[in-house]
Amino acid sequence: MKPYLHEDFFLPNELARTLYHGVAARMPIADVHCHIDPAEIAGDRRFDNLAQLWLGGDHYKWRLMRANGAPEELVTGGAPDYEKFAAFAETMPRAAGNPVHQWAHLELRRYFDCELAINAQNARAIWDTANERLPSLTAREIIRRSGVTLIATTDDPADSLEHHAAIRADASFETKVVPTFRPDLALSPEQAGHAGYLERLGRAAGIEITGFDTLCAALEMRAEFFHRMGCRASDHGLAAIPAEGSDRMALLLFLGGVYKRLGWVMQLHYGAARGVNTRMDGVLGPNTGYDCIGPAGGGAGLARFLDLLASRDSLPKTAVFSLDPNDGAMIDTVLACFQDGGAGMMHGPAWWFNDCKAGIERHLTGLANHSLLGSFIGMLTDSRSFLSYTRHEYFRRILCGLLGRWAEEGAVPPDEAALGRLVEDISYNNAMRYFGF
Amino acid sequence: MKPYLHEDFFLPNELARTLYHGVAARMPIADVHCHIDPAEIAGDRRFDNLAQLWLGGDHYKWRLMRANGAPEELVTGGAPDYEKFAAFAETMPRAAGNPVHQWAHLELRRYFDCELAINAQNARAIWDTANERLPSLTAREIIRRSGVTLIATTDDPADSLEHHAAIRADASFETKVVPTFRPDLALSPEQAGHAGYLERLGRAAGIEITGFDTLCAALEMRAEFFHRMGCRASDHGLAAIPAEGSDRMALLLFLGGVYKRLGWVMQLHYGAARGVNTRMDGVLGPNTGYDCIGPAGGGAGLARFLDLLASRDSLPKTAVFSLDPNDGAMIDTVLACFQDGGAGMMHGPAWWFNDCKAGIERHLTGLANHSLLGSFIGMLTDSRSFLSYTRHEYFRRILCGLLGRWAEEGAVPPDEAALGRLVEDISYNNAMRYFGF
Amino acid sequence: MKPYLHEDFFLPNELARTLYHGVAARMPIADVHCHIDPAEIAGDRRFDNLAQLWLGGDHYKWRLMRANGAPEELVTGGAPDYEKFAAFAETMPRAAGNPVHQWAHLELRRYFDCELAINAQNARAIWDTANERLPSLTAREIIRRSGVTLIATTDDPADSLEHHAAIRADASFETKVVPTFRPDLALSPEQAGHAGYLERLGRAAGIEITGFDTLCAALEMRAEFFHRMGCRASDHGLAAIPAEGSDRMALLLFLGGVYKRLGWVMQLHYGAARGVNTRMDGVLGPNTGYDCIGPAGGGAGLARFLDLLASRDSLPKTAVFSLDPNDGAMIDTVLACFQDGGAGMMHGPAWWFNDCKAGIERHLTGLANHSLLGSFIGMLTDSRSFLSYTRHEYFRRILCGLLGRWAEEGAVPPDEAALGRLVEDISYNNAMRYFGF
Repeated sequence: MKPYLHEDFFLPNELARTLYHGVAARMPIADVHCHIDPAEIAGDRRFDNLAQLWLGGDHYKWRLMRANGAPEELVTGGAPDYEKFAAFAETMPRAAGNPVHQWAHLELRRYFDCELAINAQNARAIWDTANERLPSLTAREIIRRSGVTLIATTDDPADSLEHHAAIRADASFETKVVPTFRPDLALSPEQAGHAGYLERLGRAAGIEITGFDTLCAALEMRAEFFHRMGCRASDHGLAAIPAEGSDRMALLLFLGGVYKRLGWVMQLHYGAARGVNTRMDGVLGPNTGYDCIGPAGGGAGLARFLDLLASRDSLPKTAVFSLDPNDGAMIDTVLACFQDGGAGMMHGPAWWFNDCKAGIERHLTGLANHSLLGSFIGMLTDSRSFLSYTRHEYFRRILCGLLGRWAEEGAVPPDEAALGRLVEDISYNNAMRYFGF
Repeated sequence: MKPYLHEDFFLPNELARTLYHGVAARMPIADVHCHIDPAEIAGDRRFDNLAQLWLGGDHYKWRLMRANGAPEELVTGGAPDYEKFAAFAETMPRAAGNPVHQWAHLELRRYFDCELAINAQNARAIWDTANERLPSLTAREIIRRSGVTLIATTDDPADSLEHHAAIRADASFETKVVPTFRPDLALSPEQAGHAGYLERLGRAAGIEITGFDTLCAALEMRAEFFHRMGCRASDHGLAAIPAEGSDRMALLLFLGGVYKRLGWVMQLHYGAARGVNTRMDGVLGPNTGYDCIGPAGGGAGLARFLDLLASRDSLPKTAVFSLDPNDGAMIDTVLACFQDGGAGMMHGPAWWFNDCKAGIERHLTGLANHSLLGSFIGMLTDSRSFLSYTRHEYFRRILCGLLGRWAEEGAVPPDEAALGRLVEDISYNNAMRYFGF
Repeated sequence: MKPYLHEDFFLPNELARTLYHGVAARMPIADVHCHIDPAEIAGDRRFDNLAQLWLGGDHYKWRLMRANGAPEELVTGGAPDYEKFAAFAETMPRAAGNPVHQWAHLELRRYFDCELAINAQNARAIWDTANERLPSLTAREIIRRSGVTLIATTDDPADSLEHHAAIRADASFETKVVPTFRPDLALSPEQAGHAGYLERLGRAAGIEITGFDTLCAALEMRAEFFHRMGCRASDHGLAAIPAEGSDRMALLLFLGGVYKRLGWVMQLHYGAARGVNTRMDGVLGPNTGYDCIGPAGGGAGLARFLDLLASRDSLPKTAVFSLDPNDGAMIDTVLACFQDGGAGMMHGPAWWFNDCKAGIERHLTGLANHSLLGSFIGMLTDSRSFLSYTRHEYFRRILCGLLGRWAEEGAVPPDEAALGRLVEDISYNNAMRYFGF
């Protein structure tokens, strides 16, 4: 049996290997949705050690460490960086089959030329090897080496986008870095600090926000500013699609019209229950590993929302992401009801807990069965880490592997040229065209 | 790699190939549920061109064309037939892996001896080849050539069934064509034209419908007429199982008793949300591609409905179809609670959006795990098109392929004779016995 | 093709075979949750014939027989034992692919050295062969021969545990048999006979139960008695997680604190709708084959329940089982929110209708993708039958087969030693450690 993550992993036959090595691996990367801090690109951040790069902010890894019994001190606490890394390394053998296991080993190979298994015995050797290479692996160097032509970060409408401006102004860096408009705080009156936030937003827009109309005006103003800064998409994180008649829905309907006018993609992320462990969420705050798949409310809400937008001629290109894997077929079939004339309804890439081999295969199978796989926008990292570009490799291998298997069993034509065009498009071209970058 | 849809496609090993070619392919077809217009059989319809045959009424194809950006003019509008066909052909390469892609290529091979890939380049050649053959491919000729012994159409209780009578009276046509009793309009007081419909129904039954009791009497009268015309099943299209105590439920409970007395199968189709794009639904009307998987309401309603029927000794043979793929295991386990003495509870074939390789395999796996796969009634086309008989081939290959794989991994005995009997039964015999044709 | 259930069934490659035969098959069995009657172990029950051993109490088999048309007389009625067996044998060929088919044939091979296919033709020969061996196959002999080191039965808090005491007192029997605390009746005031039950419970605890506080006190008293008798877990059968603020929830929160203090595992089984065929349930009573997958209520209730327990520092180790296969990913991600410091949140083995090859593979895949597969507690029989220990073999083959496949496709390292440790732990060690036996 070949070693872990060998040259042809996830590629079960000759056609799959040809599609991957001959086509997919040669395409650049467009990372159309991530949570990278633009300041770290602007400042070309350096990392002191592997723990900083790997464990800082990575709640995927934190959850596994906790499940393995690591005390919080070693997870997000004040323990020395090496001890944290060692606790992570110790966790890995029990995490066989977990995407974090696959990603971490892949990152080690691709960025540090290190093929060691991550475990307690190898922890020190990995730590030393990686740290030795780190000085040359700045944020920009990782991006360059990964062949990334575009990065879309996730940004608050009140944000000045100064780091984006700085990056644009620096001709020495070729990757395009654009913002994404994420007005979640403006849509969350129940959250602490909402009043203060509206003040900040109003200041950014030059509009005093005193009610619904001025909030709309301020958001539209900021959307236009974002557009001038290269933004081509909004992003909404929703527990579930809001109820018809609610204020939140009214705001979404208004924004839909703005996005449509600007030619943007409206991204809807829903179905996550956040901070469900209230004690730990209180201690550590959001995005620390206490979120789970929550009640997404089924497809009736989604269909109704799209219908309301369509009825007002305010339906922009829309990319839908649900955290509930059971929603896949429903989303595919709802979106197909609103595609008139290529309206750009898109079932977004397998998100978060679904971003694993089984999840991606289920997603691609659903797309193929219920819509046009050839129009799919492919992968995005959704990540806070610069090393996550390997997830594009991960996705492309799964895609090529699946197409190779389908061709073999007779489900798609074994036409190398035609499948190659599909792979090119899904790997890169479709995303660039769809968002209009 | 062998060509697309080669002789052994979907058949991964020798046993699968033996089961398919030696058994399944030789069985006739009983198409127990379709939407073919009996007038077209009675009149032995001819088709002017491939667009008429393929694109007329086929909302599966329309959805893909819309997703590919085709304007409605080319989908359901007034564009010339060839332009419509060309727009469909252009869509196909992006639809790799979609059942429409597989079905369309299979139909081209089986009925037109044409092995060309459907794409923009080949559109004209396919058009010419197919149209040349069309004059000899009348409705009856397609049915004959496909080995169809029985067709059960879907008919309104108010229908005169004149076309069924005409077909029966014509001794030159050997396929049995029977109606299915679908009283959806009678159960939908909220629909426009309901009063007019009741009048029509009453006229057909010779009963003035003035309330619940006369409605019941009229429906029972028509059911008896349908029975004399060869009908052995009803069909109900429900958004979800109605609530206990509702009028609709009361009517269903009454009808259950009628069906039981007549020895019919009650077919329940639920979990579809229809016309969710209200603007386009308003323009084009029902069955034009604006339906999706909707909230089916879970199994509690189904279990309660069957229990109410059983408690009144009014539970007929019942075939259940949910559009929600997540309902599969639930339906299997609910039905098993009402099988006393072989009561004929049947999880109907993978329906509509589930009618694809992955959906059929999931369905068959669920049946095998939770009930008696050997009693399954197999395939039905649910189609408006005469070329859809290839879906029986499609299904039988998937069935034989799955059994072959299971035998190889050790999940079923690799007993060719025993599996052959299973395949015979599932391909044809079970459906004939179950419905009593 | 190799024969059914041959030496290497479910083991697709060399690594899978090495893991199974070299590691998994050599591990003893800890059956941490079953419904075996301890009196039958204490009394070392003998069985008169195969029907008694196989069909008595086995509602899995009854459901299949009913679906095959067997009258109730032959299922649970008064027909002679051989006739019942023959009706079961006749059902089997139609049940190809059903776990009952696989289990029954496996039991026949492992305990009776009989490799005949179970069908009408072989019924008499199997009956004779098995019955000849039965005199030596007492309850204890089956347990011994199966390599079972621990059995955790399921017991009511009011139970005297006299049979457990008798088994412990008998030095000639080496398998540890411990009770599990299942206070469902105490939590079900709506059930007939509840008052009488409370009286019985009060008597056992030496406390007069007059309300919530005395009920809590009595249950705590009995939990301590159970603990002294070796109990290390409770078990709760719930339709769904109770609503916040309800009496039942209050009782569960109280009990959570007790379990945490005692170091127990709280097992939650939910998502079953029981006795949905009310007529037959009325005739035959509970656990006779009239249960199905019911509405589990989604993950919001589970997350809230765990959060309430965690907030009071009353969250014990918790093993969650839902009957709804759609809940898997949700449960995995909810539990990961409460793992702080290795808190022992465990997604319990694939339960009941999910206990089949497809269900176990889905479960293991979910665990691997969303948590630490290496910490999983593996298999339990959940059975009333002594022959069900073969389900541990069944599970371990599926586990080793999956790991072998994953290694081959590149999803886990093909490291025989590391995977061997994983297999050892999941087969036996983890369960013993987790429960603290």
